[in-house]
Amino acid sequence: MSYKADLDKVELTPEKLKEFSDIAREQLRAFFEPRSIAVIGASRDVNSPGWVAFKILLENSRSGLLKAKVYGVNIKGGELFGEPLYKSILDVPDEVDHAVILVPAKYVPGAMEECGKKGVKVATIISAGFSEIGNVELENKVVETARRYNIRIIGPNGLGVFDPWNGVDTMFLPYHKSLNGKELLACPRPKKGYIMFISQSGALGVAVLDYMYGEGIGLSKFISYGNKVDVDEIDMLLWALKDPTIRVVMIYIEGIKALGRALVKVAREFSKYKPIVLLKGGKTKAGARAVASHTASLAGDIKVYEAAVEKMGAIWTNDLMEFLDVSKALVYQPPAAGENIAIVTDGGGAGILASDKAEQVGLIVPPTSDKLLEKLRKAQERGIIPSVATFANPIDISGSASDESYVAAIEAALEEDSIDAVLVIALHHPPLLSAKFVDKIIEAIKKYKKPVVAVDIGGAGMATWVRDRFDELGVPSYPTPERGIIALKGLVSYGAFLKKVKAFDEFIQRWKPVI
Amino acid sequence: MSYKADLDKVELTPEKLKEFSDIAREQLRAFFEPRSIAVIGASRDVNSPGWVAFKILLENSRSGLLKAKVYGVNIKGGELFGEPLYKSILDVPDEVDHAVILVPAKYVPGAMEECGKKGVKVATIISAGFSEIGNVELENKVVETARRYNIRIIGPNGLGVFDPWNGVDTMFLPYHKSLNGKELLACPRPKKGYIMFISQSGALGVAVLDYMYGEGIGLSKFISYGNKVDVDEIDMLLWALKDPTIRVVMIYIEGIKALGRALVKVAREFSKYKPIVLLKGGKTKAGARAVASHTASLAGDIKVYEAAVEKMGAIWTNDLMEFLDVSKALVYQPPAAGENIAIVTDGGGAGILASDKAEQVGLIVPPTSDKLLEKLRKAQERGIIPSVATFANPIDISGSASDESYVAAIEAALEEDSIDAVLVIALHHPPLLSAKFVDKIIEAIKKYKKPVVAVDIGGAGMATWVRDRFDELGVPSYPTPERGIIALKGLVSYGAFLKKVKAFDEFIQRWKPVI
Repeated sequence: MSYKADLDKVELTPEKLKEFSDIAREQLRAFFEPRSIAVIGASRDVNSPGWVAFKILLENSRSGLLKAKVYGVNIKGGELFGEPLYKSILDVPDEVDHAVILVPAKYVPGAMEECGKKGVKVATIISAGFSEIGNVELENKVVETARRYNIRIIGPNGLGVFDPWNGVDTMFLPYHKSLNGKELLACPRPKKGYIMFISQSGALGVAVLDYMYGEGIGLSKFISYGNKVDVDEIDMLLWALKDPTIRVVMIYIEGIKALGRALVKVAREFSKYKPIVLLKGGKTKAGARAVASHTASLAGDIKVYEAAVEKMGAIWTNDLMEFLDVSKALVYQPPAAGENIAIVTDGGGAGILASDKAEQVGLIVPPTSDKLLEKLRKAQERGIIPSVATFANPIDISGSASDESYVAAIEAALEEDSIDAVLVIALHHPPLLSAKFVDKIIEAIKKYKKPVVAVDIGGAGMATWVRDRFDELGVPSYPTPERGIIALKGLVSYGAFLKKVKAFDEFIQRWKPVI
Repeated sequence: MSYKADLDKVELTPEKLKEFSDIAREQLRAFFEPRSIAVIGASRDVNSPGWVAFKILLENSRSGLLKAKVYGVNIKGGELFGEPLYKSILDVPDEVDHAVILVPAKYVPGAMEECGKKGVKVATIISAGFSEIGNVELENKVVETARRYNIRIIGPNGLGVFDPWNGVDTMFLPYHKSLNGKELLACPRPKKGYIMFISQSGALGVAVLDYMYGEGIGLSKFISYGNKVDVDEIDMLLWALKDPTIRVVMIYIEGIKALGRALVKVAREFSKYKPIVLLKGGKTKAGARAVASHTASLAGDIKVYEAAVEKMGAIWTNDLMEFLDVSKALVYQPPAAGENIAIVTDGGGAGILASDKAEQVGLIVPPTSDKLLEKLRKAQERGIIPSVATFANPIDISGSASDESYVAAIEAALEEDSIDAVLVIALHHPPLLSAKFVDKIIEAIKKYKKPVVAVDIGGAGMATWVRDRFDELGVPSYPTPERGIIALKGLVSYGAFLKKVKAFDEFIQRWKPVI
């Protein structure tokens, strides 16, 4: 953990950041890419945490998703799912990289001691019953043992790690739950994707994963660090810097301690490479009181927070939906160089609602320039854009729009120097739109490194198809005009930070689409 | 149309309102409960508006949903879907209550003249090509003819009417569209429900219906009046007053003319009986510019609007999602007597986010009173509420919550005089929650006429099941804590209006749950 002690002392140059990142990746690798895992507290008690965690890890290993051997450890010995349960980790006939610990709190120091002797590199401690209920001494003993053996810890009292790329899943919540005799998906895991999500609250974290699953948002890693005796946001940012499956970091925090000086320092440098999206619980007096009651921590002065977040270069979001909508946008689209947006729509009302929201959140919907107007008029004269279209921005190509109308209007807008980003509202009704219209739009925007976000309103069949197709092809889509604008605002905010720290041009040069 | 001319002159007492309502219902009844419908412009051109409208009305009639005979009129005669097409409405061998007109604009005055001779009571004119493109004289001729024969008009240049209770559906958009050889639902119609939705924009209207379908929100009537030469918001409010299938009126408007003095007057009186929820396009300068370009109307000074909306007693919403979330809440729950809410949750983080949003939108999350605290502690002592629960408000009954913990906490909160409404956050993970927990909560809240709104986060299996069950049993549910708060805020705003005009107590006494 040496780099953390150094953080306050050194100037964090890009080289230094990379150096720390290398150390962190070396130390943390076994959390995500272990060659072997031991589940200490694997239990035959059906649906108990030790049963669920062992079962899921074993299944992931057997399916080949998890490239690690999985061993069960239970003081009583025996067998589970056709595997032997070892009485001690010391009995496991193999090296162990990663220990997942679910035994009662009082046994954890002993288990850690054995882990140390076994040469375990990292431990995810799920067990609760430490400082959160006053058992500070017990917790300290665990930490002290870990330090002695150079074992990194995630936890205790959290859900640990979920990594859909590598199959590491220490969440002890069963996928399904039986309800009135029917098996219902109770804890769905999101698909593989490009977001690392760190949550101070385990329960909220799981709820967000469920929400992500429903919205089809992919995940790289979920970290629920519980009491956070060791691995924290700093470690995870250092890990994330060089992880190609992480394009965006989402952080949910409650207490004031989370945003310490060292984190702000690392985050500011990190944000030049990848965006951090932040949601804070306890932004108001009522929320702060709730935080105090939930985690016995201080929510702190919101002004102090805001200043810290700004310094971090993190994108501040105001609620759960914004937290996810903005993160989804940042995975797929480059940041915007400025706040001027064009809205291309086939529905007047939806364009108006988007314009309203844009102004409310500080984006600019500038009147169409003469140059752009001329291009649009030419397309109109050639019959590509319908005669009833209006070009005030929103550029309203109307219900008579065709695939080519969209392509022409969007290309013209993206070519315009004064336009930094485009919101495409593609209500699916116009009879001239073909099954290929989304694909054609995507093809057209590829040559511009300016962000584009899409909207189609509706909850069934064609609306869902249109949005899914946009998502699949790398243009994030949303079910209301206002949510589309909020997503664009996130891309504009990140761009503004990059400009401020003079990292925008490099970022854009480096930027490649996921898809 | 006489009552409209009188509106400015008379004092609108409750008696007068009811009198006007009776006249309006007499005059408008044939739009929604016709004994016969003629589709003028029924066309053999597959997927043309005249083909779609005739097909859907005929199908609804044949299925028995629409209790009216449906006749096709086409100047060329012939046959369609096994029905004869009459060359003129005058040839239809039956009385005709409701004419749906889809012929080109220039033929509409002639068609109206024939409707008059036939004794038609109401006409929905779908045809476009009138004042919206400068053909004011043609439009005036239609209106003049209608007046001469006392025919009420919805339209022209709109989508007309959709009524899932009675099967009247003049929307000329086919349910399905073929995409890559697959039939996809392109214009889903929401299920039967209790909302009347009036939209100044047809395209946005259809998009909202699609959204409602996806969210499972029911509809009583959708009105798209296009150029609005006759039937307008005033008529529809007078209709809605005595329509038992209408509990909430949603209005989407853009132009400044919509909220005239007469409407404000009627709305204010109407709002004492049923809530109006309003979404205005063109709230900002950018939005107003977009409105000017879309409908050539003035969006107007937002302050003037806000004052009018306040006077109307309407609930002002800021975006599409809020528009629907608030309307859904008002269908199912009574208004709140004040702004003090209790949050009962099994997840700390979600409770914190709800508290933050509550304070941001002007709701109060007061510290738990001694009386309430005592009740909760007693339930805790008896083992009904888990020992790890905290009671600061949010009342966090934790992941160890059982069905009975919810019931005890919610009942205690509802009994408390100082609490006006309750947000129930029911994250579905706690292992002790049974398949009956939603039903038990609903049973417990029935005896209180205080609003309750529910939240479960997640997009699959169990989360969806929990929310659907709440909805089915009359407690509106939402997928994020913040959306739940926005919904509660709508119930608080409506309650505040009722208090201001001294109509709250009567309203609550009258109020009955839908389910």
